[in-house]
Amino acid sequence: MVHYPNGQTYIEKEIKQGAGGRGMDLEKDLNLTNTYYLETDKAVIYKKPTPVQVVKVDYKSRSTAKITEAYYKTPSTIDYSGVYKGYHLDFEAKESRSKTSFPLSSIHKHQIDYIDNVIRHGGISFVIVRFVLLEETYLIEGAKIVNVYRNRTRESIPYTWFKENGYLLPFGLAPRIDYLKIVDILIAKEEAYGE
Amino acid sequence: MVHYPNGQTYIEKEIKQGAGGRGMDLEKDLNLTNTYYLETDKAVIYKKPTPVQVVKVDYKSRSTAKITEAYYKTPSTIDYSGVYKGYHLDFEAKESRSKTSFPLSSIHKHQIDYIDNVIRHGGISFVIVRFVLLEETYLIEGAKIVNVYRNRTRESIPYTWFKENGYLLPFGLAPRIDYLKIVDILIAKEEAYGE
Repeated sequence: MVHYPNGQTYIEKEIKQGAGGRGMDLEKDLNLTNTYYLETDKAVIYKKPTPVQVVKVDYKSRSTAKITEAYYKTPSTIDYSGVYKGYHLDFEAKESRSKTSFPLSSIHKHQIDYIDNVIRHGGISFVIVRFVLLEETYLIEGAKIVNVYRNRTRESIPYTWFKENGYLLPFGLAPRIDYLKIVDILIAKEEAYGE
Repeated sequence: MVHYPNGQTYIEKEIKQGAGGRGMDLEKDLNLTNTYYLETDKAVIYKKPTPVQVVKVDYKSRSTAKITEAYYKTPSTIDYSGVYKGYHLDFEAKESRSKTSFPLSSIHKHQIDYIDNVIRHGGISFVIVRFVLLEETYLIEGAKIVNVYRNRTRESIPYTWFKENGYLLPFGLAPRIDYLKIVDILIAKEEAYGE
Protein backbone atom coordinates (compact mmCIF):
# COMPACT_ATOMS: atom_id res chain seq x y z
CA MET A 1 0.00 0.00 0.00
CA VAL A 2 1.30 3.43 -0.87
CA HIS A 3 0.97 6.05 1.86
CA TYR A 4 0.42 9.60 0.77
CA PRO A 5 2.18 12.43 2.57
CA ASN A 6 0.17 15.06 4.42
CA GLY A 7 -1.56 17.81 2.53
CA GLN A 8 -4.00 18.16 -0.31
CA THR A 9 -4.74 14.48 -0.67
CA TYR A 10 -6.60 14.37 2.63
CA ILE A 11 -8.78 17.30 1.76
CA GLU A 12 -9.71 15.62 -1.50
CA LYS A 13 -10.49 12.35 0.28
CA GLU A 14 -12.62 14.13 2.85
CA ILE A 15 -14.72 15.76 0.17
CA LYS A 16 -15.11 12.50 -1.73
CA GLN A 17 -15.99 10.52 1.40
CA GLY A 18 -18.57 12.88 2.77
CA ALA A 19 -20.51 12.01 5.90
CA GLY A 20 -20.83 8.38 4.90
CA GLY A 21 -17.08 7.84 5.08
CA ARG A 22 -17.08 8.09 8.87
CA GLY A 23 -13.93 6.51 10.23
CA MET A 24 -13.00 4.88 6.95
CA ASP A 25 -9.56 6.45 6.80
CA LEU A 26 -7.49 5.56 9.84
CA GLU A 27 -4.60 7.83 8.94
CA LYS A 28 -6.89 10.83 8.59
CA ASP A 29 -8.59 10.04 11.90
CA LEU A 30 -5.24 9.79 13.67
CA ASN A 31 -3.98 13.04 12.17
CA LEU A 32 -7.13 14.83 13.32
CA THR A 33 -6.78 13.22 16.75
CA ASN A 34 -3.14 14.32 17.02
CA THR A 35 -4.07 17.87 15.98
CA TYR A 36 -6.73 17.82 18.70
CA TYR A 37 -4.17 16.64 21.27
CA LEU A 38 -1.79 19.38 20.18
CA GLU A 39 -4.41 22.13 20.26
CA THR A 40 -5.72 21.06 23.66
CA ASP A 41 -2.09 20.76 24.85
CA LYS A 42 -2.48 17.10 25.87
CA ALA A 43 0.46 15.69 23.93
CA VAL A 44 2.87 16.37 21.06
CA ILE A 45 2.44 13.56 18.53
CA TYR A 46 3.11 13.69 14.79
CA LYS A 47 3.09 11.35 11.85
CA LYS A 48 6.59 11.01 10.45
CA PRO A 49 6.93 12.01 6.80
CA THR A 50 6.77 9.19 4.26
CA PRO A 51 10.36 8.33 3.32
CA VAL A 52 11.16 9.11 -0.28
CA GLN A 53 14.38 8.37 -2.17
CA VAL A 54 15.04 11.40 -4.34
CA VAL A 55 16.92 10.65 -7.56
CA LYS A 56 16.57 13.79 -9.68
CA VAL A 57 15.93 17.39 -8.71
CA ASP A 58 15.38 20.27 -11.09
CA TYR A 59 16.84 23.44 -9.54
CA LYS A 60 15.36 26.20 -11.68
CA SER A 61 15.40 28.56 -8.76
CA ARG A 62 16.53 28.00 -5.21
CA SER A 63 13.09 28.32 -3.68
CA THR A 64 11.31 26.05 -6.12
CA ALA A 65 13.43 22.91 -6.34
CA LYS A 66 11.26 20.44 -8.24
CA ILE A 67 11.81 16.74 -7.64
CA THR A 68 11.35 14.99 -10.98
CA GLU A 69 12.29 11.43 -10.06
CA ALA A 70 11.82 9.77 -6.69
CA TYR A 71 10.62 6.49 -5.19
CA TYR A 72 8.84 5.45 -2.02
CA LYS A 73 11.25 3.77 0.39
CA THR A 74 10.60 1.10 3.01
CA PRO A 75 10.33 2.98 6.31
CA SER A 76 13.08 2.29 8.92
CA THR A 77 10.77 3.02 11.80
CA ILE A 78 7.03 3.21 12.42
CA ASP A 79 4.53 5.91 11.54
CA TYR A 80 3.79 8.05 14.59
CA SER A 81 5.90 9.33 17.45
CA GLY A 82 5.79 11.92 20.17
CA VAL A 83 5.79 12.74 23.84
CA TYR A 84 2.98 12.41 26.39
CA LYS A 85 3.31 12.94 30.17
CA GLY A 86 7.06 12.56 29.81
CA TYR A 87 6.75 9.23 27.98
CA HIS A 88 8.08 8.57 24.51
CA LEU A 89 5.28 7.20 22.32
CA ASP A 90 5.88 5.35 19.08
CA PHE A 91 3.18 3.56 17.13
CA GLU A 92 2.10 2.14 13.82
CA ALA A 93 -1.39 2.25 12.26
CA LYS A 94 -2.73 -0.38 9.89
CA GLU A 95 -6.02 -1.12 8.21
CA SER A 96 -7.29 -4.59 7.38
CA ARG A 97 -9.82 -5.15 4.61
CA SER A 98 -10.53 -8.67 5.87
CA LYS A 99 -13.41 -9.39 8.27
CA THR A 100 -11.68 -12.37 9.84
CA SER A 101 -7.97 -11.64 10.12
CA PHE A 102 -5.06 -9.21 9.89
CA PRO A 103 -2.24 -10.14 7.47
CA LEU A 104 1.18 -10.09 9.16
CA SER A 105 2.79 -9.25 5.84
CA SER A 106 1.62 -5.66 6.30
CA ILE A 107 4.17 -5.21 9.10
CA HIS A 108 7.89 -5.54 8.27
CA LYS A 109 10.23 -7.59 10.45
CA HIS A 110 12.47 -4.56 11.08
CA GLN A 111 9.43 -2.62 12.31
CA ILE A 112 8.79 -5.39 14.87
CA ASP A 113 12.44 -5.12 15.95
CA TYR A 114 12.00 -1.35 16.18
CA ILE A 115 8.93 -1.73 18.46
CA ASP A 116 10.88 -4.15 20.63
CA ASN A 117 13.82 -1.70 20.83
CA VAL A 118 11.60 1.24 21.80
CA ILE A 119 10.01 -0.77 24.61
CA ARG A 120 13.37 -2.01 25.94
CA HIS A 121 14.62 1.59 26.11
CA GLY A 122 11.61 2.71 28.15
CA GLY A 123 9.29 4.04 25.48
CA ILE A 124 5.65 3.07 24.98
CA SER A 125 4.96 1.40 21.67
CA PHE A 126 1.81 -0.07 20.18
CA VAL A 127 -0.07 -0.80 17.00
CA ILE A 128 -3.50 0.52 16.05
CA VAL A 129 -5.36 -1.85 13.74
CA ARG A 130 -8.64 -1.01 12.06
CA PHE A 131 -10.91 -3.68 10.61
CA VAL A 132 -12.42 -1.42 8.01
CA LEU A 133 -15.41 -3.58 7.09
CA LEU A 134 -16.29 -4.22 10.73
CA GLU A 135 -15.77 -0.52 11.64
CA GLU A 136 -13.71 -1.57 14.66
CA THR A 137 -10.34 -0.16 15.73
CA TYR A 138 -8.05 -1.84 18.25
CA LEU A 139 -4.95 -0.74 20.13
CA ILE A 140 -2.51 -3.58 20.74
CA GLU A 141 0.42 -3.27 23.16
CA GLY A 142 3.78 -3.48 21.41
CA ALA A 143 5.00 -6.44 23.48
CA LYS A 144 1.95 -8.49 22.41
CA ILE A 145 2.38 -7.75 18.72
CA VAL A 146 6.12 -8.54 18.92
CA ASN A 147 5.33 -11.83 20.63
CA VAL A 148 2.58 -12.91 18.24
CA TYR A 149 4.72 -11.93 15.23
CA ARG A 150 7.82 -13.81 16.36
CA ASN A 151 5.95 -16.94 17.41
CA ARG A 152 3.53 -17.06 14.53
CA THR A 153 2.45 -20.34 12.99
CA ARG A 154 0.53 -18.72 10.14
CA GLU A 155 0.71 -15.52 8.11
CA SER A 156 -2.22 -13.72 9.69
CA ILE A 157 -3.64 -12.98 13.11
CA PRO A 158 -7.34 -13.90 13.51
CA TYR A 159 -9.78 -11.11 14.30
CA THR A 160 -10.80 -12.92 17.48
CA TRP A 161 -7.23 -12.48 18.80
CA PHE A 162 -7.70 -8.69 18.59
CA LYS A 163 -11.00 -8.92 20.48
CA GLU A 164 -9.29 -10.89 23.23
CA ASN A 165 -5.92 -9.12 23.37
CA GLY A 166 -6.55 -5.56 22.19
CA TYR A 167 -8.32 -2.50 23.49
CA LEU A 168 -11.31 -1.44 21.39
CA LEU A 169 -11.05 2.27 20.58
CA PRO A 170 -14.42 4.01 20.42
CA PHE A 171 -15.03 6.46 17.60
CA GLY A 172 -15.75 10.04 18.68
CA LEU A 173 -15.99 13.49 17.20
CA ALA A 174 -13.19 15.32 18.99
CA PRO A 175 -10.90 13.56 19.34
CA ARG A 176 -11.83 11.02 16.67
CA ILE A 177 -9.96 8.14 18.32
CA ASP A 178 -9.04 8.91 21.91
CA TYR A 179 -6.16 6.44 22.10
CA LEU A 180 -4.42 8.35 24.92
CA LYS A 181 -7.08 6.98 27.28
CA ILE A 182 -5.64 3.53 26.61
CA VAL A 183 -2.08 4.87 26.85
CA ASP A 184 -3.03 6.01 30.36
CA ILE A 185 -3.89 2.39 31.18
CA LEU A 186 -0.53 1.23 29.76
CA ILE A 187 1.29 3.88 31.83
CA ALA A 188 -0.57 2.84 34.99
CA LYS A 189 0.40 -0.81 34.35
CA GLU A 190 4.04 0.18 33.81
CA GLU A 191 4.13 2.22 37.00
CA ALA A 192 2.49 -0.60 38.97
CA TYR A 193 4.87 -3.33 37.82
CA GLY A 194 8.03 -1.21 37.41
CA GLU A 195 10.44 -1.61 34.56
CA MET B 1 19.42 24.68 2.10
CA VAL B 2 17.97 21.51 0.65
CA HIS B 3 18.35 18.42 2.81
CA TYR B 4 18.80 15.17 0.98
CA PRO B 5 17.12 12.01 2.27
CA ASN B 6 19.23 9.07 3.44
CA GLY B 7 20.91 6.84 0.94
CA GLN B 8 23.27 7.16 -1.95
CA THR B 9 24.02 10.84 -1.49
CA TYR B 10 25.93 10.19 1.72
CA ILE B 11 28.14 7.56 0.15
CA GLU B 12 28.96 9.93 -2.68
CA LYS B 13 29.76 12.70 -0.23
CA GLU B 14 31.99 10.40 1.81
CA ILE B 15 34.04 9.48 -1.23
CA LYS B 16 34.36 13.08 -2.35
CA GLN B 17 35.30 14.32 1.12
CA GLY B 18 37.92 11.73 1.86
CA ALA B 19 39.93 11.97 5.06
CA GLY B 20 40.16 15.74 4.82
CA GLY B 21 36.42 16.15 5.22
CA ARG B 22 36.56 15.15 8.88
CA GLY B 23 33.47 16.38 10.61
CA MET B 24 32.42 18.59 7.73
CA ASP B 25 29.00 17.04 7.39
CA LEU B 26 27.02 17.24 10.60
CA GLU B 27 24.10 15.20 9.31
CA LYS B 28 26.37 12.34 8.28
CA ASP B 29 28.16 12.43 11.64
CA LEU B 30 24.86 12.30 13.50
CA ASN B 31 23.55 9.44 11.39
CA LEU B 32 26.73 7.44 12.06
CA THR B 33 26.47 8.30 15.76
CA ASN B 34 22.84 7.16 15.89
CA THR B 35 23.73 3.91 14.11
CA TYR B 36 26.47 3.39 16.71
CA TYR B 37 23.99 4.01 19.54
CA LEU B 38 21.55 1.56 17.96
CA GLU B 39 24.16 -1.15 17.40
CA THR B 40 25.57 -0.81 20.90
CA ASP B 41 21.99 -0.78 22.23
CA LYS B 42 22.41 2.57 23.98
CA ALA B 43 19.43 4.36 22.47
CA VAL B 44 16.95 4.29 19.59
CA ILE B 45 17.30 7.57 17.68
CA TYR B 46 16.53 8.24 14.03
CA LYS B 47 16.49 11.13 11.64
CA LYS B 48 12.95 11.75 10.44
CA PRO B 49 12.50 11.55 6.67
CA THR B 50 12.62 14.84 4.79
CA PRO B 51 9.00 15.86 4.14
CA VAL B 52 8.07 15.86 0.49
CA GLN B 53 4.80 16.97 -1.10
CA VAL B 54 4.06 14.45 -3.83
CA VAL B 55 2.07 15.86 -6.76
CA LYS B 56 2.33 13.22 -9.49
CA VAL B 57 2.99 9.50 -9.32
CA ASP B 58 3.44 7.18 -12.25
CA TYR B 59 2.02 3.75 -11.34
CA LYS B 60 3.40 1.49 -14.04
CA SER B 61 3.44 -1.42 -11.67
CA ARG B 62 2.44 -1.58 -8.04
CA SER B 63 5.94 -2.18 -6.73
CA THR B 64 7.64 0.52 -8.76
CA ALA B 65 5.52 3.62 -8.25
CA LYS B 66 7.66 6.44 -9.65
CA ILE B 67 7.16 9.93 -8.28
CA THR B 68 7.51 12.35 -11.19
CA GLU B 69 6.62 15.62 -9.51
CA ALA B 70 7.21 16.55 -5.89
CA TYR B 71 8.47 19.45 -3.79
CA TYR B 72 10.35 19.80 -0.52
CA LYS B 73 8.01 20.92 2.26
CA THR B 74 8.71 22.99 5.36
CA PRO B 75 9.11 20.46 8.18
CA SER B 76 6.43 20.55 10.94
CA THR B 77 8.81 19.26 13.55
CA ILE B 78 12.58 18.96 14.01
CA ASP B 79 15.05 16.51 12.52
CA TYR B 80 15.87 13.78 15.03
CA SER B 81 13.83 11.92 17.61
CA GLY B 82 14.02 8.82 19.73
CA VAL B 83 14.11 7.25 23.14
CA TYR B 84 17.00 7.04 25.63
CA LYS B 85 16.78 5.74 29.22
CA GLY B 86 13.00 6.17 29.05
CA TYR B 87 13.27 9.81 27.95
CA HIS B 88 11.85 11.18 24.74
CA LEU B 89 14.60 13.00 22.81
CA ASP B 90 13.92 15.48 20.04
CA PHE B 91 16.56 17.66 18.43
CA GLU B 92 17.55 19.74 15.46
CA ALA B 93 20.99 19.96 13.82
CA LYS B 94 22.27 23.04 11.99
CA GLU B 95 25.52 24.12 10.41
CA SER B 96 26.77 27.69 10.30
CA ARG B 97 29.23 28.83 7.65
CA SER B 98 29.97 32.01 9.59
CA LYS B 99 32.91 32.21 12.00
CA THR B 100 31.24 34.78 14.21
CA SER B 101 27.53 33.99 14.43
CA PHE B 102 24.61 31.66 13.78
CA PRO B 103 21.75 33.07 11.69
CA LEU B 104 18.37 32.65 13.42
CA SER B 105 16.66 32.50 10.04
CA SER B 106 17.84 28.89 9.72
CA ILE B 107 15.37 27.88 12.44
CA HIS B 108 11.63 28.37 11.80
CA LYS B 109 9.36 29.90 14.42
CA HIS B 110 7.13 26.81 14.48
CA GLN B 111 10.21 24.67 15.20
CA ILE B 112 10.93 26.85 18.24
CA ASP B 113 7.31 26.33 19.34
CA TYR B 114 7.74 22.60 18.76
CA ILE B 115 10.88 22.51 20.99
CA ASP B 116 8.98 24.42 23.68
CA ASN B 117 6.05 21.97 23.44
CA VAL B 118 8.28 18.91 23.70
CA ILE B 119 9.96 20.29 26.84
CA ARG B 120 6.63 21.21 28.47
CA HIS B 121 5.39 17.65 27.93
CA GLY B 122 8.43 16.14 29.62
CA GLY B 123 10.69 15.40 26.66
CA ILE B 124 14.32 16.47 26.27
CA SER B 125 14.91 18.80 23.37
CA PHE B 126 18.02 20.55 22.15
CA VAL B 127 19.81 21.95 19.12
CA ILE B 128 23.21 20.86 17.82
CA VAL B 129 25.01 23.67 15.99
CA ARG B 130 28.25 23.22 14.08
CA PHE B 131 30.47 26.14 13.17
CA VAL B 132 31.90 24.47 10.09
CA LEU B 133 34.89 26.79 9.57
CA LEU B 134 35.85 26.64 13.24
CA GLU B 135 35.36 22.83 13.37
CA GLU B 136 33.37 23.21 16.60
CA THR B 137 30.04 21.61 17.44
CA TYR B 138 27.84 22.73 20.33
CA LEU B 139 24.79 21.25 22.03
CA ILE B 140 22.36 23.89 23.28
CA GLU B 141 19.52 23.06 25.66
CA GLY B 142 16.09 23.62 24.11
CA ALA B 143 14.95 26.09 26.79
CA LYS B 144 17.96 28.32 26.08
CA ILE B 145 17.44 28.38 22.33
CA VAL B 146 13.70 29.09 22.79
CA ASN B 147 14.55 31.95 25.13
CA VAL B 148 17.23 33.52 22.93
CA TYR B 149 15.01 33.17 19.84
CA ARG B 150 11.94 34.75 21.43
CA ASN B 151 13.86 37.61 23.06
CA ARG B 152 16.18 38.35 20.20
CA THR B 153 17.23 41.86 19.34
CA ARG B 154 19.07 40.88 16.16
CA GLU B 155 18.81 38.19 13.51
CA SER B 156 21.78 36.11 14.59
CA ILE B 157 23.30 34.68 17.76
CA PRO B 158 27.00 35.50 18.23
CA TYR B 159 29.49 32.62 18.35
CA THR B 160 30.58 33.71 21.83
CA TRP B 161 27.05 33.00 23.11
CA PHE B 162 27.50 29.35 22.11
CA LYS B 163 30.85 29.16 23.91
CA GLU B 164 29.22 30.51 27.06
CA ASN B 165 25.86 28.74 26.92
CA GLY B 166 26.45 25.53 25.01
CA TYR B 167 28.26 22.26 25.59
CA LEU B 168 31.18 21.69 23.22
CA LEU B 169 30.87 18.22 21.66
CA PRO B 170 34.25 16.56 21.06
CA PHE B 171 34.78 14.77 17.76
CA GLY B 172 35.51 11.04 18.03
CA LEU B 173 35.69 7.98 15.85
CA ALA B 174 32.93 5.81 17.33
CA PRO B 175 30.68 7.46 18.10
CA ARG B 176 31.53 10.51 16.00
CA ILE B 177 29.72 12.96 18.27
CA ASP B 178 28.89 11.45 21.63
CA TYR B 179 26.03 13.81 22.42
CA LEU B 180 24.36 11.35 24.83
CA LYS B 181 27.09 12.22 27.36
CA ILE B 182 25.64 15.72 27.45
CA VAL B 183 22.09 14.36 27.51
CA ASP B 184 23.12 12.50 30.69
CA ILE B 185 24.01 15.87 32.21
CA LEU B 186 20.62 17.29 31.15
CA ILE B 187 18.85 14.26 32.67
CA ALA B 188 20.79 14.63 35.94
CA LYS B 189 19.82 18.32 36.08
CA GLU B 190 16.17 17.44 35.43
CA GLU B 191 16.16 14.79 38.14
CA ALA B 192 17.85 17.13 40.60
CA TYR B 193 15.44 20.03 40.07
CA GLY B 194 12.28 18.04 39.37
CA GLU B 195 9.85 18.88 36.61
